[in-house]
Amino acid sequence: MSIITLMTDFGMKDGNVGVMKGVIMRIAPHIQIIDLSHQIGAQNIREAAIILNRSAPYFPDGTIHVVVVDPGVGTDRRPIAARLGSQYFIGPDNGLITLWLEQCERKGLPVEFFHLNKPQYWLEEVSQVFHGRDIFAPVSAHLASGVTLGELGTTVTDPVRMQFPRPKRTKGWIGEVIYLDNFGNIISNLECQHLEEQRVVTVLIKGVKILGMVPTFGEQPPGELVALYGSTGSLIVSEVNGNAAQRLGVKVGDSIEVIVE
Amino acid sequence: MSIITLMTDFGMKDGNVGVMKGVIMRIAPHIQIIDLSHQIGAQNIREAAIILNRSAPYFPDGTIHVVVVDPGVGTDRRPIAARLGSQYFIGPDNGLITLWLEQCERKGLPVEFFHLNKPQYWLEEVSQVFHGRDIFAPVSAHLASGVTLGELGTTVTDPVRMQFPRPKRTKGWIGEVIYLDNFGNIISNLECQHLEEQRVVTVLIKGVKILGMVPTFGEQPPGELVALYGSTGSLIVSEVNGNAAQRLGVKVGDSIEVIVE
Amino acid sequence: MSIITLMTDFGMKDGNVGVMKGVIMRIAPHIQIIDLSHQIGAQNIREAAIILNRSAPYFPDGTIHVVVVDPGVGTDRRPIAARLGSQYFIGPDNGLITLWLEQCERKGLPVEFFHLNKPQYWLEEVSQVFHGRDIFAPVSAHLASGVTLGELGTTVTDPVRMQFPRPKRTKGWIGEVIYLDNFGNIISNLECQHLEEQRVVTVLIKGVKILGMVPTFGEQPPGELVALYGSTGSLIVSEVNGNAAQRLGVKVGDSIEVIVE
Repeated sequence: MSIITLMTDFGMKDGNVGVMKGVIMRIAPHIQIIDLSHQIGAQNIREAAIILNRSAPYFPDGTIHVVVVDPGVGTDRRPIAARLGSQYFIGPDNGLITLWLEQCERKGLPVEFFHLNKPQYWLEEVSQVFHGRDIFAPVSAHLASGVTLGELGTTVTDPVRMQFPRPKRTKGWIGEVIYLDNFGNIISNLECQHLEEQRVVTVLIKGVKILGMVPTFGEQPPGELVALYGSTGSLIVSEVNGNAAQRLGVKVGDSIEVIVE
Repeated sequence: MSIITLMTDFGMKDGNVGVMKGVIMRIAPHIQIIDLSHQIGAQNIREAAIILNRSAPYFPDGTIHVVVVDPGVGTDRRPIAARLGSQYFIGPDNGLITLWLEQCERKGLPVEFFHLNKPQYWLEEVSQVFHGRDIFAPVSAHLASGVTLGELGTTVTDPVRMQFPRPKRTKGWIGEVIYLDNFGNIISNLECQHLEEQRVVTVLIKGVKILGMVPTFGEQPPGELVALYGSTGSLIVSEVNGNAAQRLGVKVGDSIEVIVE
Repeated sequence: MSIITLMTDFGMKDGNVGVMKGVIMRIAPHIQIIDLSHQIGAQNIREAAIILNRSAPYFPDGTIHVVVVDPGVGTDRRPIAARLGSQYFIGPDNGLITLWLEQCERKGLPVEFFHLNKPQYWLEEVSQVFHGRDIFAPVSAHLASGVTLGELGTTVTDPVRMQFPRPKRTKGWIGEVIYLDNFGNIISNLECQHLEEQRVVTVLIKGVKILGMVPTFGEQPPGELVALYGSTGSLIVSEVNGNAAQRLGVKVGDSIEVIVE
């Protein structure tokens, strides 16, 4: 049995996530549907791309990730489906898959892209403002039910890719804050593979110096600022049992510097 | 297999939604449960009625919608079940079904109502403050398991109906804001069927004039205020990639005027 | 079929709850997963313990409750599993189970505890900051798939217990506010079993006197402050159709006094 995950910027109040599930279950009654996140910032493609990239590796083969963060809904942006390794993506062609696609390319996994242009797999009436309900949900259910990607659309080779900030090598590294999580952890685009042969001496953020790195939060007393590797290998800055993002007034896009030896 | 949807004003923190699911699964272990919304404003029957009406048509035949927005819990308001077309409603008899019922009546679908007065289908102990857990959840699970509506209660013909604001025909139309969604879209009670043979020239809201309508958000640059038809056919006012409700300081109940030709 | 419930302080945005579900479904594809709460205050073990204790009795035999509120992740705090009556707990050994364990002991139900120290049932790579994903999720899926507690770890007899405030008997009772719910209901640690043979004459909180108790909210007009028994038997203070916690400026830990006769 396949799993469909859903990620949107719809929030949980308006009923639209439930409606997508209703549409899916009319076509594929026995499917399992898992919510990945519905609290992506409105139109924040970048945020969805980061969460998708971190999450996909933990799902079973065959999982179908439907992502609807779609400021271009109803315009000429393409609806697409993709196979990335042994999993699937369905959503607008606006860069949502960039990071996950790059991850698959680094791992040498096969990737394929399809322009969803076969309306027989959509709802009969398609609103110009809710393709999540009218195109992406039914297409994902058909895919889960055995329809092939080639039946759902025609091959394309040029999916939209977004530019993401890359860390710069100086004497150390200069990276960027890319996400602030529920705990106020400050997540950077510096990853353990950049730094693994080097010892991090100091992390600098918002004028604050943090000496060295710790293996986990509880190594230091509550209230302490610490640098460590997060659960997917990013360098993060945290306040033990506190909220580092609030304390330091950090925003996505702020700079973070690492001095190594 | 049936699906049960849940809509409440419980929020997602306190565990009460999970408890209702536990109760359901003790009786109907293989049921699929879908959350429609748990962020209905406290005691806001009107809001729940709007979301139920918009959402139900997208669910499969046989779906059971349990709605618990229930300021009268434990008083003499009746617990009811209803068949509306090929789906079911379970919840308090306080007007929650008004809009969906009217929709079914317009479509000529059969409707039936039952006063849930057979305690053998409830939990053994019934709290006077949580009928969602003790009456509505177990009743929905029994219904999903094959118990008939007639076994769960006795027929009634006078479900409570709420008054909802209706658009007024002037030279154009004067409607009302009925909902503000997660994106700050301003949703009115003016629907495309009111307006379909007329061309909308101007939309007036909070002293702001919006000329004409667009087919979708992305037709205009970010920051522009636009009027368009939402995904269920309501006339809505949006700010492209922004929050129109915040920008205009609009509240539910505010007036919205449409000039047509 | 077993059910796994999840309770965390992760929030619903970051994708981490979805990732735990992905991990579970790779091991136990047909499991049903229910969210109990993901909005526990960060590191607030006490809050999670209260919700677990109130919720568990409503779930079927065999349910596995995974609770990840885990400030000590990656330190030497033990990961544990427990059997409590006919259900299971999986999570960090930091007091989360205290109230539920005491409930089982009062009822004379059998309890057993196991130190999860068999890495063959974990993910291959274990992050020091996300045991929810790397230890607790896979262990719960193995348990649901038929692996026994004794295979997952070795018996222990000294699970960590937290101190919770107990009501004090005076002429009446002095209790404490232990939780504020989504409606602003003020929930105390005074329970109907403390008070059942006595008549509550007055409830005192934040200098406000509430005379007597009502059976349910709707007994009094909107805006009235009332005292009543909540759905799990706690004495609570509510504002009819309003938010008592906000109105009275009450916080968890505040005192509440009951005069009886």
